[in-house]
Amino acid sequence: MAGQKGFTLWFTGLSGAGKTTISHLVEHELRSRGSKVEILDGDVIRENLSKGLGFSKEDRDTNIRRIAFVANLLSRNEVPVITAAISPYEALRGEAREVMGERFIEVYVKATLETCAERDVKGLYEKAFRGEIKEFTGVSDPYEPPKAPELTLDTEAHEAEESAAMVIAYLEERELIPPSLLEPAAAG
Amino acid sequence: MAGQKGFTLWFTGLSGAGKTTISHLVEHELRSRGSKVEILDGDVIRENLSKGLGFSKEDRDTNIRRIAFVANLLSRNEVPVITAAISPYEALRGEAREVMGERFIEVYVKATLETCAERDVKGLYEKAFRGEIKEFTGVSDPYEPPKAPELTLDTEAHEAEESAAMVIAYLEERELIPPSLLEPAAAG
Repeated sequence: MAGQKGFTLWFTGLSGAGKTTISHLVEHELRSRGSKVEILDGDVIRENLSKGLGFSKEDRDTNIRRIAFVANLLSRNEVPVITAAISPYEALRGEAREVMGERFIEVYVKATLETCAERDVKGLYEKAFRGEIKEFTGVSDPYEPPKAPELTLDTEAHEAEESAAMVIAYLEERELIPPSLLEPAAAG
Repeated sequence: MAGQKGFTLWFTGLSGAGKTTISHLVEHELRSRGSKVEILDGDVIRENLSKGLGFSKEDRDTNIRRIAFVANLLSRNEVPVITAAISPYEALRGEAREVMGERFIEVYVKATLETCAERDVKGLYEKAFRGEIKEFTGVSDPYEPPKAPELTLDTEAHEAEESAAMVIAYLEERELIPPSLLEPAAAG
């Protein structure tokens, strides 16, 4: 492969669906192949680019536009990007797709609300169900699933490692990443 | 030169000093050499990353931190960046320098307030002197000149093209950019 190619893996899904976990596994694999990669995590972006914004529709939209702006700057300069924000609104993901065109790869990280609430990694669902967090996606704020994502990762049916492998396989098929430096492990 | 090198040309100076003009000349020269480059202009960043922020010290600081965050993401991935915001405060430019280390190149685009006000490209100084714009750098808000910039471009003594050439010469000396594809023009 001549040179690096830029793209944006745009993860979307409920809190607790597995976006962050899978993004780190994909990052690790890309780095092991000598590829660049930047993760724009929801929390990191809120800290560095969107402090002061809340979770109203307007503020969420602003936050997503900023993520798309930065992801576009990086990916058009051949830096692979993974965004890992909930990004609940179809229209805003559509805007990001329009900005980035073919570089935009929508990845639906899918798990039911019940499963995410059971996992409750950050203890947020319990608070949301008690009404202590307003505008919590899936509980008191809408989540609009993607209609035609490039990839769907069902994290109830698959372990995070399997989901990451599906992402890598997709990128390989589109020839967006260098081949693995390791031979596949012998089976059995 | 093997591969591209990342750096940030951090332009600082009063409104009207010449930051935008020189940044576009440098951009043009870099592109003509096959180099990548992104300009993070003050106005573009305010539109895309800092809408809603004003010009209080706190808001200016937040704006500059966001520019530094994005400049760091790009430059650590080998993308040359030019920032062209006033960035009036020494402390905040110091923060940006700390984040980017050797990749940070401070460029003082220097012109007196009188000259900038005479040029008054955007018609802002007239308004500021009439008191119609509050917190206008150099008039009703402080500008702290850099103490030890890597480069100083005196835009009263030099045309924009000469200033751009000084930036290019500096980058060549540090071997941060590819050589020119053109032979130097014969003198006389």
